[in-house]
Amino acid sequence: MTKRGFPDEEFRARVAAAQEQMAAAELDALLLTEEADVAYVTGFQTRFWESPTRPWFIVMPGSGAPIAVIPSIGADLMARTWLTDIRTWRAPDYEDDGVSLLAETLAESVGRTGRVGVPMALESHLRMPLADWARLEDHLPNIRFVPDAGVLRRLRMVKSAGEIAKIETACAIAGRAFDRVPEIAAAGVPLDLVFRRFQMLCLEEGADWVRYLAGGAGPGGYADVISPASAHPLEPGDVLMLDTGLTHDGYFCDFDRNFSVGPPSAETRSAHARLIEAVQAGAEIARPGVLASDLFHAMDRIVTGGAGGSEAGRLGHGLGLQLTEGLSLIPQDDTVLVEGMVLTLEPGVTLGNGRIMVHEEDIVVTDGAPRFLSDPFGPEIAVLEGRA
Amino acid sequence: MTKRGFPDEEFRARVAAAQEQMAAAELDALLLTEEADVAYVTGFQTRFWESPTRPWFIVMPGSGAPIAVIPSIGADLMARTWLTDIRTWRAPDYEDDGVSLLAETLAESVGRTGRVGVPMALESHLRMPLADWARLEDHLPNIRFVPDAGVLRRLRMVKSAGEIAKIETACAIAGRAFDRVPEIAAAGVPLDLVFRRFQMLCLEEGADWVRYLAGGAGPGGYADVISPASAHPLEPGDVLMLDTGLTHDGYFCDFDRNFSVGPPSAETRSAHARLIEAVQAGAEIARPGVLASDLFHAMDRIVTGGAGGSEAGRLGHGLGLQLTEGLSLIPQDDTVLVEGMVLTLEPGVTLGNGRIMVHEEDIVVTDGAPRFLSDPFGPEIAVLEGRA
Repeated sequence: MTKRGFPDEEFRARVAAAQEQMAAAELDALLLTEEADVAYVTGFQTRFWESPTRPWFIVMPGSGAPIAVIPSIGADLMARTWLTDIRTWRAPDYEDDGVSLLAETLAESVGRTGRVGVPMALESHLRMPLADWARLEDHLPNIRFVPDAGVLRRLRMVKSAGEIAKIETACAIAGRAFDRVPEIAAAGVPLDLVFRRFQMLCLEEGADWVRYLAGGAGPGGYADVISPASAHPLEPGDVLMLDTGLTHDGYFCDFDRNFSVGPPSAETRSAHARLIEAVQAGAEIARPGVLASDLFHAMDRIVTGGAGGSEAGRLGHGLGLQLTEGLSLIPQDDTVLVEGMVLTLEPGVTLGNGRIMVHEEDIVVTDGAPRFLSDPFGPEIAVLEGRA
Repeated sequence: MTKRGFPDEEFRARVAAAQEQMAAAELDALLLTEEADVAYVTGFQTRFWESPTRPWFIVMPGSGAPIAVIPSIGADLMARTWLTDIRTWRAPDYEDDGVSLLAETLAESVGRTGRVGVPMALESHLRMPLADWARLEDHLPNIRFVPDAGVLRRLRMVKSAGEIAKIETACAIAGRAFDRVPEIAAAGVPLDLVFRRFQMLCLEEGADWVRYLAGGAGPGGYADVISPASAHPLEPGDVLMLDTGLTHDGYFCDFDRNFSVGPPSAETRSAHARLIEAVQAGAEIARPGVLASDLFHAMDRIVTGGAGGSEAGRLGHGLGLQLTEGLSLIPQDDTVLVEGMVLTLEPGVTLGNGRIMVHEEDIVVTDGAPRFLSDPFGPEIAVLEGRA
């Protein structure tokens, strides 16, 4: 376990770095509405984001500390972060759900004219009602809301030592849970019970939350990688895959493990070994200066012979405060790797009968060879008890 | 456990009801982007929504079945729903992340001109990048994107028998977990361990996911109701509150329980009894024809003497595919209750030293007295072992 949270200085450094980029992009403020962005600059953590009712706003001015404009139900919790300027309203307010308070705060931060950056690109969502967004623009006719120039997305891609430690802890928790899968899964056990028991293992091993779990099971492979579990019992010859994004102190791991129910077929063994080979090929070249697309091609050569991709769309992605964030390992992503980036390597192979197998590991880019944050699995697939 | 999913006829009935309202509001189609709306009309369930990378679109035309416009990674899972028209692209696509495919589908559904309703009001978010939203509008200069007239929000507020059964199952699972809290919590146990063990109990009792858990513990009450857990051990005299939103087959429960660590003080006992009295006062009048605001006032009279509310903002809310949805129990909400609405009654009291206590139950409105979906707790607070 790492110490919870981050020292205030880390938040100040994040904000200073953002403000430097904001100045370069001629942004007078940033407006943030999403859980991960809010957590990144404030340290505010709550599962209350699950409720869609209330919007939460952070105004980051061009200099000085961010300002929280939030529902009063969150005032006590926000006051425990490093922020000191916390403005609240009683939400939900059907007449004015924080819009005029936000407008005042923005006007105070940038003046009556100015450019406010808002995340608008891929992976971002505006977490407030569209009608309130229009009202906000009406309140501030001389302020321009413009794309945020990717400021936080870019900063968040490169993790601090403290962030990497949290992701590594999350990975270690999931690793211990994966090691114990033989305790909970065997032929005859319904897949939904495996899912439930696996979440319990994750919690027992120290997860704060099991925010993501997907997987599948089927003869020699599974049909997709995003399904919830059916009640179908595992059968000899099935390949079971569990892919978890549990969190530790707000940070995700995201990797999977495959298991053969009973002795694996030659095809299953070979497919698994090929996946591991692909991960190693990706890891082999994951160094500063290399492109995200290079990692894609290194893995794609192994799993498809260089066909250029699959319907899953990518062979890995960034990881941190979100299950998936930042770069994508696709041919079109020319992000240059730098030290501190955390990514998943997630090659997949297509087998007969519409079945697939996918393997995933988490790495951090260093100044030399990348470091695996998940304990990398070997070429031989794990085997579960094949008799019920 | 209820049978998973719903018969196709239920989805057809939901869509037909929506289309009737769409016709009245002169909407030629609806565009849906959020998890709960997509689940409501299709039955599509996955935890993959946790990944922000890919948008998912449902186009509901004025007549006929909805059309899915989704990333190819979800094609297999969507094909298991009742939808037959499923159009996919390989996401993420940095050039065109589904926007032109969505534009074509909309144009095909409403013609080159038409009015497309989009959820824009309180509680809704547009789950796609703002820049892509602007691109979509550019693709379709003669189509008007307008507020959705609350069509799905209104429909979703009134639950079918099948939906109520799922919420009741979720409540029963949480109820059994709450009954077992004395197994996992006592003086000396750190709050974060209580949180972790409580999630394990929820899973052991049958939860699919524990999407929400908040709570608090402190001498004679807690500071707020949305905090994650600290590592502070429970102490004699603490009041512990656990508030969970676990899901069964996509549907949430949302209720809490309070526990006194060791014998409760007179103030704690009295506060707890007052909360139960307030819940009963709300339930007493929760019948068809009554307003949401009436329930607020009935409870507020008991907990504050009629002060008109608290910083928490409301004394209950709708519940279903989302932890909170639909109506709010606030003075300004004039929603008329009708049979089949599921709501929480969630009064709070303010105690000394900035401490609060909150109690919450879940009910369904019937043609007579409401039915409790959570097993309503009595006036005497539960007591945990007070010695470590």
